[in-house]
Amino acid sequence: MQTLDALGAGAGPAPIFAALGDRTRLSLLARLSDGEPRSIAALSADTDLTRQAVTKHLHVLEDVGLVSSIRVGRESRFAYRPEPLAAARSYLDEVSARWDEALARLKSFVEG
Amino acid sequence: MQTLDALGAGAGPAPIFAALGDRTRLSLLARLSDGEPRSIAALSADTDLTRQAVTKHLHVLEDVGLVSSIRVGRESRFAYRPEPLAAARSYLDEVSARWDEALARLKSFVEG
Repeated sequence: MQTLDALGAGAGPAPIFAALGDRTRLSLLARLSDGEPRSIAALSADTDLTRQAVTKHLHVLEDVGLVSSIRVGRESRFAYRPEPLAAARSYLDEVSARWDEALARLKSFVEG
Repeated sequence: MQTLDALGAGAGPAPIFAALGDRTRLSLLARLSDGEPRSIAALSADTDLTRQAVTKHLHVLEDVGLVSSIRVGRESRFAYRPEPLAAARSYLDEVSARWDEALARLKSFVEG
C-alpha cells in the first residue's frame, strides 16, 4: 500500500507535521504565506514574542524547508516555501481517500 | 484575517499536527483509515513495535480525537475518526490559498 511504503522510505511527512505542531509556528507560516519575505524584527512586532523566540520558531520551520532565509543587505528575511505542505497534504489526501472508500463500501453493503 | 484569528481562539489545529508528527503514528493512522477497528495485538503484529509502544502512540492519537477506542467483549479496539484531519486540512488549504493568491498577484504584475 502506497502510504505505508512511502512512510517506510525516507523521513516522509512526519517532520513537517511536527514543525506544524505549534500554534506560534502556524501563525508565522500563515503570515508569510502572503508571499512577502519578512525580517525577524517585523515578525516579532506582530506578536507578543521576543525576537529570540521568533528566531527559534523560524529555524524549526527552516529545518524542514517550510521557510527559507534570504539576505537583504545586512538583514535576514524569511520567505514561505510551498513544497513541504504539498507532502503533508498528500498524506492527508491518501488517508481521507482510504476512509472515503471504506464509507463507500459500507454504503454499498447496507444498500445491498 | 481568518487563519490568524482562528489560531488565536481555542487550541486550533496545532495539537493535531503535533500528534501527526511521528512516523509510527502516521503509519498506524493510515492503517486504521480503511475503517476497520483493530486491537493493540493486531496493530503490534503488523509492526516491529511492542504492545506498550503501540498503546502509547494510540493514546496520543486518541487525545486529539484521531482515533477512538471501542470495547469489544474484553478487548479494546481502536477506530479511525475523520474529523480532526478536516481541521488540519482546513489550515493547509488556507495557507495554500494565500500563497496561490500571492502568485496570481505577481503574475498579473509581471504581465502588466
